[in-house]
Amino acid sequence: MTRSTPAPLTVGIVGFGKIARDQHVPAIAATGLFRLAAVVSPHGATPEETGLGDVPVFRSQREMLAALPGLDSVAICTPPAVRHALTVEALRAGKHVLIEKPPAATLTELRLLLDAAEGAKRTLFAAWHSRFNAAVEETRRRLTGATVRHVAITWKEDVRRWHPGQDWIFAAGGFGVFDPGINALSILTEILPAPVVVRDAELRVPANRDTPIAATLRMEGAAGSTVGTVTADFDFLQEGEQTWTIAIETDGVGTDGGRLDLTHGGTRLSVDGVPVLAEPDAEYQGIYRRFRHLIADAAGDVDARPLQLVADACLVGRWRTTDAFHW
Amino acid sequence: MTRSTPAPLTVGIVGFGKIARDQHVPAIAATGLFRLAAVVSPHGATPEETGLGDVPVFRSQREMLAALPGLDSVAICTPPAVRHALTVEALRAGKHVLIEKPPAATLTELRLLLDAAEGAKRTLFAAWHSRFNAAVEETRRRLTGATVRHVAITWKEDVRRWHPGQDWIFAAGGFGVFDPGINALSILTEILPAPVVVRDAELRVPANRDTPIAATLRMEGAAGSTVGTVTADFDFLQEGEQTWTIAIETDGVGTDGGRLDLTHGGTRLSVDGVPVLAEPDAEYQGIYRRFRHLIADAAGDVDARPLQLVADACLVGRWRTTDAFHW
Repeated sequence: MTRSTPAPLTVGIVGFGKIARDQHVPAIAATGLFRLAAVVSPHGATPEETGLGDVPVFRSQREMLAALPGLDSVAICTPPAVRHALTVEALRAGKHVLIEKPPAATLTELRLLLDAAEGAKRTLFAAWHSRFNAAVEETRRRLTGATVRHVAITWKEDVRRWHPGQDWIFAAGGFGVFDPGINALSILTEILPAPVVVRDAELRVPANRDTPIAATLRMEGAAGSTVGTVTADFDFLQEGEQTWTIAIETDGVGTDGGRLDLTHGGTRLSVDGVPVLAEPDAEYQGIYRRFRHLIADAAGDVDARPLQLVADACLVGRWRTTDAFHW
Repeated sequence: MTRSTPAPLTVGIVGFGKIARDQHVPAIAATGLFRLAAVVSPHGATPEETGLGDVPVFRSQREMLAALPGLDSVAICTPPAVRHALTVEALRAGKHVLIEKPPAATLTELRLLLDAAEGAKRTLFAAWHSRFNAAVEETRRRLTGATVRHVAITWKEDVRRWHPGQDWIFAAGGFGVFDPGINALSILTEILPAPVVVRDAELRVPANRDTPIAATLRMEGAAGSTVGTVTADFDFLQEGEQTWTIAIETDGVGTDGGRLDLTHGGTRLSVDGVPVLAEPDAEYQGIYRRFRHLIADAAGDVDARPLQLVADACLVGRWRTTDAFHW
């Protein structure tokens, strides 16, 4: 008998909201690399409500860790505000931990997470979910060794449609339009053959809120780099068609032409206008496969670069007040 | 014959403004660990104007590096905007490099500097000059192992007195009141026995400028840490008495009482109101001694934490518009 996959590890999901139900539970089932052993729901969802049969539900991570000392790993699916303390608690209890983006509210907290993971000798995987698309990997492959003249990021969506009533996103520390925008920056840092630096930014904050509702960034590669300029246009007030596009002009990639369009949030790639790849979203299956590999290799994966670019934009940017925002 | 000091290395000063004349030249002479071999002055100062006798003056770092291939090291004393490219150029030419604070305009650029130093296998020393006071080191020593209840930073100075007419400080990327404020944060991160995280900040930007003229920060130690809360009050409009003070309340330090006051920019320390240390400013002599030790050890010293705290404050802070500023 041959075994093509390792024995599944147990995982507990902490925070049983939309992302946990829509993405984590199906991805865990589909990959078969983990077995869902528990769920933490501070609101006390009943097994009938979770639809997970006899998978136990706990009111807090602390209760779950006490009740299941042999648990291998934890996936933190809570809003950002409580993520840091839960991640540190799980690492200190000896669990491998998967966290969603953004991995921390500040760069200092991200460094402290790294210290905690090192101290506990456990895997910490801060997943940037948008990177787990075949079209992103294909774009990265094609740009290896290429000269990139210009990249134009257009990330425009309707906050009323995707975050209805979620005031936390406009409260200080809530990232505002950088909450989706950081997904674009996570793709950018993954696909480019050389790093870019923020040279200029304009951040527009509604008069009655604390975080940007729109932002434009101008970045560029270091002098002598193979990357030229990068612009990013983030907007939270886009009605109708939603746009999550990265357009890349190169000097030509191998025998192909010079223009790559990564569209639909990183799921589709066209080269010189001709579609070459369009796969259905399977981001979270890729995330769980990578989490399992990292644990097997006793490694971690915490890439601070997307968060650094946002912090850099806030640091060198011009902050402007714009119209008040109401839901 | 015994030799208590190693043979001096040659150093070139790039950017011959006030800080170079007032601090670097005297410190190089006083410590005797380096020999000033050249000066770069893009404005073309004559030897009479430099007052440095036969020390050659070049118009650019590139000219200096070409003319003096055996030069050991470079001290970059330029304004921040051109510092990054000059630092990379000097490292790539195989020189050890000393840079002033802030070490970079963005965190991404700071990471690229580290990469450049590693690639060149040369010492990069990003000096935080305020740390090089005996009272700072004495405070750090006394706080080792202590429980710190509260720290109150008050850093209030008159920008018209210290930066007259320097519009760059209020232009995007110029740091504004964080230009002096980061000195306080460099002391804070040096003396505290555990890290702190920015929880809240308010940044006040003049209506006609791009960077803060005043800022308040609320920080705290991680849960279970030996550090409680830290407040910082930065103000660029302080007339009369100038205030650069860090007041520290502890649960008691050894046999001493619990209150430490680090005043006058980190040069004086009182414990429970009793002065215990007040030494004249010798920051730059300490900087050159450390630079020499780092080179001897084939080591580097680039601490990103003060810049990270400023970026974190910009990221989670509430930006407010205040009265226009005119010189």
